Amino acid sequence: MADRRWWDAGVMEPKVSIITLGCPDVAALRRFYVEGLGWTPVMEVPGEVCFIQVGGGVALALWRAEALAEDSGAPVGEPGSSAVALAHNVDSGDEVVDVLARAEAAGATVLKPAGPIFFGGIQGYFADPAGFRWEVAWNPGWFVAPDGSVSLAGPPE
Amino acid sequence: MADRRWWDAGVMEPKVSIITLGCPDVAALRRFYVEGLGWTPVMEVPGEVCFIQVGGGVALALWRAEALAEDSGAPVGEPGSSAVALAHNVDSGDEVVDVLARAEAAGATVLKPAGPIFFGGIQGYFADPAGFRWEVAWNPGWFVAPDGSVSLAGPPE
Repeated sequence: MADRRWWDAGVMEPKVSIITLGCPDVAALRRFYVEGLGWTPVMEVPGEVCFIQVGGGVALALWRAEALAEDSGAPVGEPGSSAVALAHNVDSGDEVVDVLARAEAAGATVLKPAGPIFFGGIQGYFADPAGFRWEVAWNPGWFVAPDGSVSLAGPPE
Repeated sequence: MADRRWWDAGVMEPKVSIITLGCPDVAALRRFYVEGLGWTPVMEVPGEVCFIQVGGGVALALWRAEALAEDSGAPVGEPGSSAVALAHNVDSGDEVVDVLARAEAAGATVLKPAGPIFFGGIQGYFADPAGFRWEVAWNPGWFVAPDGSVSLAGPPE
């Protein structure tokens, strides 16, 4: 175990290792992330599955939707109606505008252009070619320490 | 920017900051993760949103489904039909069995009990009380280096 604290306490460590997106066409979605956005797979089986690192200890997996449904024993719906959003936080409003433009140029659909958001900062959304929604946001309170710890109230005093 | 390589290349950094789960009842889902699994929020607004760290630079957010739909400008479906799975990797088959039992005791529904899986190792699935699917897996190839780099082919030689 990475951390005995959770294990010894009899609970589950708060940890996501892989975010799997079940998509109808792995090759098409791979083109968007790998060729369009320039992301590098850490492992892949063409047309079947593609893993890309997206955080400390965290990978994104593009997998066939049918395989995910069969493997998990529960059907999956359309990517676009998934009750999930992946947020990509940046450091300024200008970066939000620019990242949305880069994603759109790579084949994404902008769901919501960059604009001010209720928590302060600037935010927009895009959908990848399969329909999975991504938020691109500059949240002034978001802070990641060198050890990967996250905060929504800025750096520690 | 955390990393100028991506920015200067004109692409989007491969990074997920937040995994947002849009759920009908934030308080109920919070009870599962915080009281049931023992996870600690890094920030929350009761009944509205709850953030929990789940990786290096990565947080899980439990948010009202209606708010997610309104914010992103696109409707969301039932959590259980989301074409997404979150994987929680552990270091042995016994740990898979134990984590599934701990999740079930906290209020999850086991979708698939622990068993051998095609890539080698042991795997099972549960659904959280809202219906979001989690895989619990021991994958002998999964390796996370001290700097957070992930591999699916074991530790580097």
